[in-house]
Amino acid sequence: MTADTPLAKTHLSVDCTVLGFDGKRLEVLLVRRTGEEGGRRFHDMKLPGSLIWEDEELDSAARRVLTELTGLKHVPLTQFRAFGSKDRTKDPKDVHWLEHAQKARVGRIVTVAYIALVKIDRILVREMEGTEALWVPVDAVPPLAFDHNEIISAALSYERTLASRDPSVLFDLLPRKFTATALRNLYEVVFGRRLNPSNFYKQMARMPYVVALDEFERGVDHRAARYYRFDKKQYDIIRL
Amino acid sequence: MTADTPLAKTHLSVDCTVLGFDGKRLEVLLVRRTGEEGGRRFHDMKLPGSLIWEDEELDSAARRVLTELTGLKHVPLTQFRAFGSKDRTKDPKDVHWLEHAQKARVGRIVTVAYIALVKIDRILVREMEGTEALWVPVDAVPPLAFDHNEIISAALSYERTLASRDPSVLFDLLPRKFTATALRNLYEVVFGRRLNPSNFYKQMARMPYVVALDEFERGVDHRAARYYRFDKKQYDIIRL
Repeated sequence: MTADTPLAKTHLSVDCTVLGFDGKRLEVLLVRRTGEEGGRRFHDMKLPGSLIWEDEELDSAARRVLTELTGLKHVPLTQFRAFGSKDRTKDPKDVHWLEHAQKARVGRIVTVAYIALVKIDRILVREMEGTEALWVPVDAVPPLAFDHNEIISAALSYERTLASRDPSVLFDLLPRKFTATALRNLYEVVFGRRLNPSNFYKQMARMPYVVALDEFERGVDHRAARYYRFDKKQYDIIRL
Repeated sequence: MTADTPLAKTHLSVDCTVLGFDGKRLEVLLVRRTGEEGGRRFHDMKLPGSLIWEDEELDSAARRVLTELTGLKHVPLTQFRAFGSKDRTKDPKDVHWLEHAQKARVGRIVTVAYIALVKIDRILVREMEGTEALWVPVDAVPPLAFDHNEIISAALSYERTLASRDPSVLFDLLPRKFTATALRNLYEVVFGRRLNPSNFYKQMARMPYVVALDEFERGVDHRAARYYRFDKKQYDIIRL
């Protein structure tokens, strides 16, 4: 390469990987997309994301785009990686769809990917004009637009590393009160391996930051399970 | 904003924050820059970084640029954040310098920042044609080009968070054998607080992954201190 080799000049986008846990499976928030390719309409899904404006900062663009597409506000978005491969826009279907939506020619696009771990029971996804957001189990995500499957894989790997270093982040995904089974299911899906229930409950008993409540499940057809809560103060004491 | 608001279209760069530890202070690898502004030559410093080529991927660009500017190879670079503020290029001095170097007009630039923690004693910084790389203590870094002071602050904060979650990364900064004082100094500079030496040595004795060697310092004018080494296997057993 020489000084005459063209420099990369790219559009810039943000994409948000919002992860939740329904008690059994990890879910990711996606939005539907409708486009037309080769004279035929198609329907598929993508992460909530968009190109950003000339005057916009990355973090505020991520918040704007997530709110516009899903109605979500006050979500703790953290940047976790930039995806800048020139192959991100190799599928003409994606380029045509974007050029139609943005009324602009599009070449290489660098996207800055954000992640958020949320309590799925407290998040209300509002029906937005022209878009529809929905939760999809991460093990059932179909082929998505652009490299969004790859972004989700990277987000899950990021979450796994984070949780192995700092298990407290897992509790961001649980409701304020949760059963031992829900916690075990969460460990299983995040770390991708089966845990022996009785060993797990012994291990849980050694976590002073998982506090048993005097509350039990109601209206279930099996034996009502006890609820627990996460005690951040106890956690911080141990980890110091 | 409407569909007519101009989209961000930017050049793309990579910047590498390579951190080392000299036994007392954290140091960062910088390169010298010479430019001309208002008819006067100036000399200052910047992170090793550069705009990337049209056909280049981010990770390989980071490796290329670091090698070209400092001679370093096989450095474990990890992406830690993208910096995309439109204010990154608000200083005309930086824009003129870059336009002169690249023979191209430059507007907004998104940079993808990488971090590496290295053993300063094993890293040879080669004298490169036209550039000069040098280690500068992080507490003595002068005002740098672009937002590079901000990138270094963010890298230090990233390193602190990483080390508090996973202390094993600190040993990447130490030589293979190190004294207790060096380890204490490292904890002090990374976490930014003084540690009582005798308390620290008690704490160290409770770290089965810090193994005492039968080797002592040589040729020092104080009492020769014992060397220790980091045992990754022991560390992994405890942390599981």
